Amino acid sequence: MKALVYKGPGEKAWEERPKPTILKPTDALVKVIKTTICGSDLHILKGDVPEVISGRVLGHEGVGIVEETGSAVSNFKKGDHVMISCITSCGKCAYCKKGMYSHCENGGWILGHLIDGTQAEYVRIPFADNSLYGIPEGMDEEALVMLSDILPTGFECGVLNGRVSPGDTVAIVGAGPVGLAALLTAQFYTPAEIIMIDKDDNRLAIAKKFGATRTINSAKLDAKDEIMNLTANKGVDCAIEAVGVPATFELCESIIAPGGHIANIGVHGRSVDLHMETLWSQNITITTRLVDTVTTPMLLKIVQAKKLDPMQLITHRFKLSEIIKAYDVFAHADKEKALKVIMTCD
Amino acid sequence: MKALVYKGPGEKAWEERPKPTILKPTDALVKVIKTTICGSDLHILKGDVPEVISGRVLGHEGVGIVEETGSAVSNFKKGDHVMISCITSCGKCAYCKKGMYSHCENGGWILGHLIDGTQAEYVRIPFADNSLYGIPEGMDEEALVMLSDILPTGFECGVLNGRVSPGDTVAIVGAGPVGLAALLTAQFYTPAEIIMIDKDDNRLAIAKKFGATRTINSAKLDAKDEIMNLTANKGVDCAIEAVGVPATFELCESIIAPGGHIANIGVHGRSVDLHMETLWSQNITITTRLVDTVTTPMLLKIVQAKKLDPMQLITHRFKLSEIIKAYDVFAHADKEKALKVIMTCD
Amino acid sequence: MKALVYKGPGEKAWEERPKPTILKPTDALVKVIKTTICGSDLHILKGDVPEVISGRVLGHEGVGIVEETGSAVSNFKKGDHVMISCITSCGKCAYCKKGMYSHCENGGWILGHLIDGTQAEYVRIPFADNSLYGIPEGMDEEALVMLSDILPTGFECGVLNGRVSPGDTVAIVGAGPVGLAALLTAQFYTPAEIIMIDKDDNRLAIAKKFGATRTINSAKLDAKDEIMNLTANKGVDCAIEAVGVPATFELCESIIAPGGHIANIGVHGRSVDLHMETLWSQNITITTRLVDTVTTPMLLKIVQAKKLDPMQLITHRFKLSEIIKAYDVFAHADKEKALKVIMTCD
Amino acid sequence: MKALVYKGPGEKAWEERPKPTILKPTDALVKVIKTTICGSDLHILKGDVPEVISGRVLGHEGVGIVEETGSAVSNFKKGDHVMISCITSCGKCAYCKKGMYSHCENGGWILGHLIDGTQAEYVRIPFADNSLYGIPEGMDEEALVMLSDILPTGFECGVLNGRVSPGDTVAIVGAGPVGLAALLTAQFYTPAEIIMIDKDDNRLAIAKKFGATRTINSAKLDAKDEIMNLTANKGVDCAIEAVGVPATFELCESIIAPGGHIANIGVHGRSVDLHMETLWSQNITITTRLVDTVTTPMLLKIVQAKKLDPMQLITHRFKLSEIIKAYDVFAHADKEKALKVIMTCD
Repeated sequence: MKALVYKGPGEKAWEERPKPTILKPTDALVKVIKTTICGSDLHILKGDVPEVISGRVLGHEGVGIVEETGSAVSNFKKGDHVMISCITSCGKCAYCKKGMYSHCENGGWILGHLIDGTQAEYVRIPFADNSLYGIPEGMDEEALVMLSDILPTGFECGVLNGRVSPGDTVAIVGAGPVGLAALLTAQFYTPAEIIMIDKDDNRLAIAKKFGATRTINSAKLDAKDEIMNLTANKGVDCAIEAVGVPATFELCESIIAPGGHIANIGVHGRSVDLHMETLWSQNITITTRLVDTVTTPMLLKIVQAKKLDPMQLITHRFKLSEIIKAYDVFAHADKEKALKVIMTCD
Repeated sequence: MKALVYKGPGEKAWEERPKPTILKPTDALVKVIKTTICGSDLHILKGDVPEVISGRVLGHEGVGIVEETGSAVSNFKKGDHVMISCITSCGKCAYCKKGMYSHCENGGWILGHLIDGTQAEYVRIPFADNSLYGIPEGMDEEALVMLSDILPTGFECGVLNGRVSPGDTVAIVGAGPVGLAALLTAQFYTPAEIIMIDKDDNRLAIAKKFGATRTINSAKLDAKDEIMNLTANKGVDCAIEAVGVPATFELCESIIAPGGHIANIGVHGRSVDLHMETLWSQNITITTRLVDTVTTPMLLKIVQAKKLDPMQLITHRFKLSEIIKAYDVFAHADKEKALKVIMTCD
Repeated sequence: MKALVYKGPGEKAWEERPKPTILKPTDALVKVIKTTICGSDLHILKGDVPEVISGRVLGHEGVGIVEETGSAVSNFKKGDHVMISCITSCGKCAYCKKGMYSHCENGGWILGHLIDGTQAEYVRIPFADNSLYGIPEGMDEEALVMLSDILPTGFECGVLNGRVSPGDTVAIVGAGPVGLAALLTAQFYTPAEIIMIDKDDNRLAIAKKFGATRTINSAKLDAKDEIMNLTANKGVDCAIEAVGVPATFELCESIIAPGGHIANIGVHGRSVDLHMETLWSQNITITTRLVDTVTTPMLLKIVQAKKLDPMQLITHRFKLSEIIKAYDVFAHADKEKALKVIMTCD
Repeated sequence: MKALVYKGPGEKAWEERPKPTILKPTDALVKVIKTTICGSDLHILKGDVPEVISGRVLGHEGVGIVEETGSAVSNFKKGDHVMISCITSCGKCAYCKKGMYSHCENGGWILGHLIDGTQAEYVRIPFADNSLYGIPEGMDEEALVMLSDILPTGFECGVLNGRVSPGDTVAIVGAGPVGLAALLTAQFYTPAEIIMIDKDDNRLAIAKKFGATRTINSAKLDAKDEIMNLTANKGVDCAIEAVGVPATFELCESIIAPGGHIANIGVHGRSVDLHMETLWSQNITITTRLVDTVTTPMLLKIVQAKKLDPMQLITHRFKLSEIIKAYDVFAHADKEKALKVIMTCD
């Protein structure tokens, strides 16, 4: 089969690889129909994720068709259409039992990271019963690629951890795909205001279309001042960090109202200054989270009920064989006005 | 009347002051029977709390007898024995309605801070109906001085925010009076282990007596290493910071298990390094809180039911007129083996 | 002044009454601008609420202008436009401190019940600081009459107690004004399905317009069978009872899925059969609640943010002096296709 | 092997049966070391549980040693000492993912019910990875038999559902083994009062020893009147029903305070009167639950930390071969002063 293979920092190739096989009774083999590229794939390519070895097939998102199942798999059978979760869950370790699949002792984020991933014609999925989700008939499968990672990430790490509630004032810092996923899913809870902050006017315009009540271009305006003005100097009930650098995290610290929640989504490369000299008395909560995808069944119901349209996150479409080109577009998202790119197997 | 008056950085005096009077219909005038000294009183004396002006009567803890009430006070009448909360709550602003009395728009921590306090023969209590608590007959009033501040602080900021749960492994960093209050009240929830960390062997011995299952002297041992050993390298479910300096906060960051809760109690003077480069994916929660004293009615019930003995926190007793000496003992708590000191009006 | 006065079972009159006056420092006197009629007013008129004495001015909903305030009132002053809560909260008893204003030891539902109410030109509001809500400039005051009772009732007793969550399947039994209020506010949480059950096709048509995804006329179809068919025989996650008779409560018992929530709003006159022989093992929750109006500040924010339009609940408008006619229309709501009727002071 | 076999209503036998074998890759075969008898075993024997067919091996509690594992079992291996949960959880259906193992689509309560159980020398455990719990070295295995069913049942259905909280007043109706399990585990949350109600003075004396602060013999006194006197006419914050008949459930209805929680544990054979005519406005919660055993890992930690001693629930010990005699003692628990009986394999 063909696959997108990481060849060490800065190098990747679309090349022939042996088709994976069932290794354990809990495995399934899935023919990939559609997949996408994540920001973390770009990080891996830069060499920022040292545990990814040269030769690894990348990708942790996608939908496909079950080709074969191990003897212990009972939720799925050959021919079933499935959505692949970015998080592999064994369903039987202490973390999985608590719903914290991200820290599964036998899984977690392993696809396209510690084992071969989904940017390929076939992928082996460990613990298939707990890591695949059946696609109800009639659903648009392309839309569901957004449920592999980006929507549960925005929702769990941002919206749920931020305890977004009816009537709240919410700020989301970063209008990339994950920040926009937080924006879309925050609306499940009917906040009064969602203020989107980014440096890219195109993305802010999209945010407006996706339901932001206000946008602030932080390259042009002082975001803290703007937000304090908009909130009568109180700050926001919930600040969602969707960038992953010290400046944006500290912005969240500076705009959070007493009793408010800072929910981090961003992947950080270094420490940030936590201003405990002011925050110690402010009754705030700060949360971090690697997505657990524990809300995937609920998100599926919401998409099925047409209360959320994930298709709006998709801006570009390619054949799977054009994946090198797709990477190029995604790597220049600003210039290309790209959010998520879809690659479809021919 | 006599009162302990702040005279500017480093200076205080036990001197004659006019007896306070009712200023608003919601005020009560309380004759102070017993009061105590808080770590924050020492901070004020050092000049660290600039909003406290020279001439201010200090103190925000105590029990007393109602001497007079304003026309709108209905929960109390002359002669009632009352416990004075360190937090004044108006009961009718947006924060009070949410149970966040610490940020009451008309109160909060004002006693011995923005208005005259309890280290005096009489004190005016604003919003008396919501800021005083009736003492049920037969209760030991001295014990209840511990409910003015220290026990709700340890419980709300440490135990509740840290979500201490049955079976948990808890670490408390700092075995001063507030850390010990967290230790006593953490046991309401039957954690499996409570590990107490401090540099003072005397305080660690007290912690052991108060229910700590393990103690670590961090002056002698590497606390992080010890805890990782004790927890099979997993870390603790809940880490309570009860010191207020960067090193102890960062210790909490280093010992928290995935999914765990860091609950800050300490009053911090400067920012701390938040290691988001590792914590971003650890599904943790960090909380800050100025005590709301919203759990005071519950703590009263527990003391009344003899499930908690606050008396163990009291090590020294003085007459109110000996308050200068009491301050001296409390300021040298280590040497004097002091926890809380009680001053009683003659 | 003129007022609508209860004259014993079956009797009422629009007659001259002395204008109320401030009795306590916490009172406010409010000139009523708009008021409405509640189903419970009809119950009182039938003689079903024996604690209402002859001579009582009815009504517990409305908006108005503050005319005078007692000496302890600080949130409001003469001239302020206010919304009157159906629940009077003292803000300082044990229940109010827990946010359970419905059981306030000094208030609760007293307006138009134990003290004179709002269907009059003036009304005395006890504990005004906690029982009135300021109307932000620019808001439609007529819409806010719906926030006095009906919207917090539907929301707190139905939606919050029923723990309506994103993706849920919800059934609401009873499409009267309160059931419709539950329908409107359930949508704050983005359930996948809201199935409305009633015997009146007009009301079901309104429910459809208000966001119900399905409707069932239980006079024509077996509601239980229909719901079991719609839910693949699983039942609903949340069943909201908004009628108050045994048959509708038992319908909820029969359609609740394992792990589901039955939230009662209806005012019941007699006991119902609770089928513990099947329900004991179904992991369900049943809740009851008299509205606390503790969510009123949040509902105000949502209305202000235009996420909820209460005006849709208003079908008829009268002058306050036409209140007898308004009662007549409201008493024949089915025939008149009436939901809520508004009376405006000239 | 030998097993206790149900032979139709009123009939049982200790007889030879084929040793079970691994049927699926997720099965384990366990050699039973210790088992016990549950009240529901007596119900089955009376013929009250029609889905139990003649020929069924009874029993759903016990500890043992793993003899053999299917190819997909990874948490356990031959020789491991394990505690058998009364609830079988597949770990991969919608209910298991929500932590509601009781309604597992592939398991639930099946042992000694729909498949052969633990009152035998060997038992086949389906979905062993999720239905067995490893016994940490050094723990008393006999004590852990109490964790198969009775302690999680009392804790989850009674204490957790009843939301027992520090300072609460709790009533437990029924001092049988499950009521006593609720009593023991309620103390994890430090309620102020636990009032135990039963008709058997011996059991009430045991309750006192187990931590009840008050006991009421409802054969001699009017339990409702007693409780209303003890609670200044307010009622209790939490009422736990551990009997399963209408009278005891209605007692709970009559003693619950506004805002309180009625948590049902009892297995009911018929419907009860729910007094909605008074309860509709009392802001109460009623819960039902078949135990999920989702708290078993936590209970294991608590037993290991010696915060709970399950041994106190065991009153009689037999050899497994004496099981007919053990049934006889357990069936006459009152006369024999029996709580739980343990049978040990020779």
